[in-house]
Amino acid sequence: MTTATPASAATATAEGAGRATGPSAEELDGTDPLARFRDRFLPADGVVAYLDGNSLGRPLRQTGADFADVVAGEWGTRLIRSWDERWLDLPLGLGDRIAASTLGAAPGQTVVADSTTVLLYKMMRAAVAARPGRTRILMDDDNFPTDRFIAEGIARECGLELQWIPVDKAAGITIDLIDEALTAASGEAFGDRVALVVLSHVSYRSGHLADVAAITARVHDAGALVLWDLCHSAGSAPIELDAWNVDIAVGCTYKYLNGGPGSPAFAYVASALQNELDQPIQGWMGASDIFAMAEGYVPAKGMRRFISGTPPILGMLPMQGMLELIEEAGMPAIRQKSIALTEYTIRIVDDLLTPFGVQVASPRDSGERGSHVTIRHPRFKAVTAELWKRGIIPDFRNPDGLRLGLSPLSTSFGEVLVAVEAIRDILADTESAAEAGPGR
Amino acid sequence: MTTATPASAATATAEGAGRATGPSAEELDGTDPLARFRDRFLPADGVVAYLDGNSLGRPLRQTGADFADVVAGEWGTRLIRSWDERWLDLPLGLGDRIAASTLGAAPGQTVVADSTTVLLYKMMRAAVAARPGRTRILMDDDNFPTDRFIAEGIARECGLELQWIPVDKAAGITIDLIDEALTAASGEAFGDRVALVVLSHVSYRSGHLADVAAITARVHDAGALVLWDLCHSAGSAPIELDAWNVDIAVGCTYKYLNGGPGSPAFAYVASALQNELDQPIQGWMGASDIFAMAEGYVPAKGMRRFISGTPPILGMLPMQGMLELIEEAGMPAIRQKSIALTEYTIRIVDDLLTPFGVQVASPRDSGERGSHVTIRHPRFKAVTAELWKRGIIPDFRNPDGLRLGLSPLSTSFGEVLVAVEAIRDILADTESAAEAGPGR
Repeated sequence: MTTATPASAATATAEGAGRATGPSAEELDGTDPLARFRDRFLPADGVVAYLDGNSLGRPLRQTGADFADVVAGEWGTRLIRSWDERWLDLPLGLGDRIAASTLGAAPGQTVVADSTTVLLYKMMRAAVAARPGRTRILMDDDNFPTDRFIAEGIARECGLELQWIPVDKAAGITIDLIDEALTAASGEAFGDRVALVVLSHVSYRSGHLADVAAITARVHDAGALVLWDLCHSAGSAPIELDAWNVDIAVGCTYKYLNGGPGSPAFAYVASALQNELDQPIQGWMGASDIFAMAEGYVPAKGMRRFISGTPPILGMLPMQGMLELIEEAGMPAIRQKSIALTEYTIRIVDDLLTPFGVQVASPRDSGERGSHVTIRHPRFKAVTAELWKRGIIPDFRNPDGLRLGLSPLSTSFGEVLVAVEAIRDILADTESAAEAGPGR
Repeated sequence: MTTATPASAATATAEGAGRATGPSAEELDGTDPLARFRDRFLPADGVVAYLDGNSLGRPLRQTGADFADVVAGEWGTRLIRSWDERWLDLPLGLGDRIAASTLGAAPGQTVVADSTTVLLYKMMRAAVAARPGRTRILMDDDNFPTDRFIAEGIARECGLELQWIPVDKAAGITIDLIDEALTAASGEAFGDRVALVVLSHVSYRSGHLADVAAITARVHDAGALVLWDLCHSAGSAPIELDAWNVDIAVGCTYKYLNGGPGSPAFAYVASALQNELDQPIQGWMGASDIFAMAEGYVPAKGMRRFISGTPPILGMLPMQGMLELIEEAGMPAIRQKSIALTEYTIRIVDDLLTPFGVQVASPRDSGERGSHVTIRHPRFKAVTAELWKRGIIPDFRNPDGLRLGLSPLSTSFGEVLVAVEAIRDILADTESAAEAGPGR
């Protein structure tokens, strides 16, 4: 690894802080058509730059009052009557709303329930059972841990084989890798052994954006089902589940949908497939007649069958406010801002941080990139701790990745500049300290 | 069925409204040592009597403000840092608090996570796998639907047999029924085929309170594990999981723990058993090193292994306020009030409603009764609808049960009187109407 001296880094900084090769943060914020949305989020005292909306989105100014209203009204006054009046329909109604605003999906295919992990389990189990005789689950080896762990468990319990697709950790899954995996190295086709392919739309590590339409078509050619994890794309990248012919998708609502810590996840199942899929956690809320208290479980028709227990109503509240903003801004404008933020981030990282040996570990082509940029440096664990002390909040991912999450409606270009400058300063300080030290 | 004429019913009412045979509602409320707690709950505009705390407990006055504080502070200001500062420990910390105040369980054995249904699934799957070679799950045939449905699914997927124990719907599970089930009718022992017994502490239908200690001991004699569903007892009936030698328990927090609609459930696993049990939904939050993002899933030691996905933090908030009240009042006093409420309810039902043919479908011995009283009448579906219109809120359970849920800290004796008098009036009105009608 080549590491610049502090002196050369300081020179690079003085030369322009990214301003030489494009508009400044101030100019970009000044002309940002979505800038007005930033004021809708609750100010965070002492936070100078929040760059972790890809992990936990910020609350809106209205969220606290929204809770107080629901506690006093729907819960406190309507009490149990709210189940009939509103809550029983909420998992599917809210699902439809997410579908319309962010997933490119017609109504009746999306439900809000459980955690992402539990929904992944239910959906993977349902999918492999719908392809009897096929013995393999395909997954990339850098998928998010919970996706991998769930698949490992299911492979073991269902007697299936889990086949890993090796991917470049600074990139992600591509149609070529899928094609290769679905075709035997020997040239012998074994696609007909694959029941299910599980992939992430945006890689949690690199931010790589997969070509869902092409990959889905290739998987369908092999007769398998595909499950897309939308955790890192829903609300920040364009999604067209219906047009892309996706079978199943699961996503998280506490990242770019700002649902709050541990808010419930969503699942999409294409209409044509719903009644073919039986999920294993057959609870009373997924039964065809909930209050029949009947003797045997008969799954509801359609998406309701994917609900298990009593829906987490309060956890569904904050995302409703965020969906209003998304509906108002529209996904095309949100995607434009996202691209502008990641382009700017990469530009100033190149300018200010490459002299210290920092590497960009996200795709440089915006068409292959979601809404976060990952950069690498061996000292980033310590750097992240120092940034947090200064009120600058990205996150760190083992072994050396610092993720700059850019939430299109709440993140400013100015925050990115402050963060990247602080990283530069900390790297410079620690390099100076190392040089001045007793030569460890 | 014998049904009194409206005239005789009116006479019974005039004769005493229950006051002849014991203290009045007014006197009971006046001397209730827990009466002061009622003012800690949010008043419900237009609600005359809320008797459904066994389905959805009421919010506290403080709950709305508590949410606003957490939104502004832990979420909005500390942001992602709150995971390190507080949230990652909350599922186990809050579990310990529930354990200490309501479950009679030492720390390190209780976790808050998922819905009741999902936790039942995880725990039943883990339990049957821990008794390999045993092929049977035993369960009473009037257990709550979600418990039955989950067990049905698990029996099917694991190739087990589900053996139903027939119970009296107006009573519940007893040591005799368990003993009979665990002993072959022919006298031949087949207890060693039973892997798991799943029972409810308090029956959702009749309110019957099971003898957990005796039944658990009998199940252990047969070498099986027992899972107790505490949904209808936690927070209202005395529970001593450690002393009773219980293996596994799952319970709900939105009934007597007032956690709000769909708040997350809790699970208890006895210390000695924890590392023997592997639950099937192996998510990142249950892995031994959460942020290692390691290659293979290794379950954490102890209770953390029963967590799957990201914990639902906001859903854990309201119950924390309620636990303060429970800690302040203490379970012995709560149980005393619960018994007083159910005794009073049965007394005035006998006085005011038996003339109309209403039957008490709950145990008459308070030692065998939880905190709700179920009464039966063929017209109760329509009666419940009319009660709701009048702001009197019990719930209805097919085919003819009206449940009067008595939440010890929030329900007054006056509310019970108002509700029972209203039921009497509605039954009298509809009988008069039927008599005056064209004789259908």
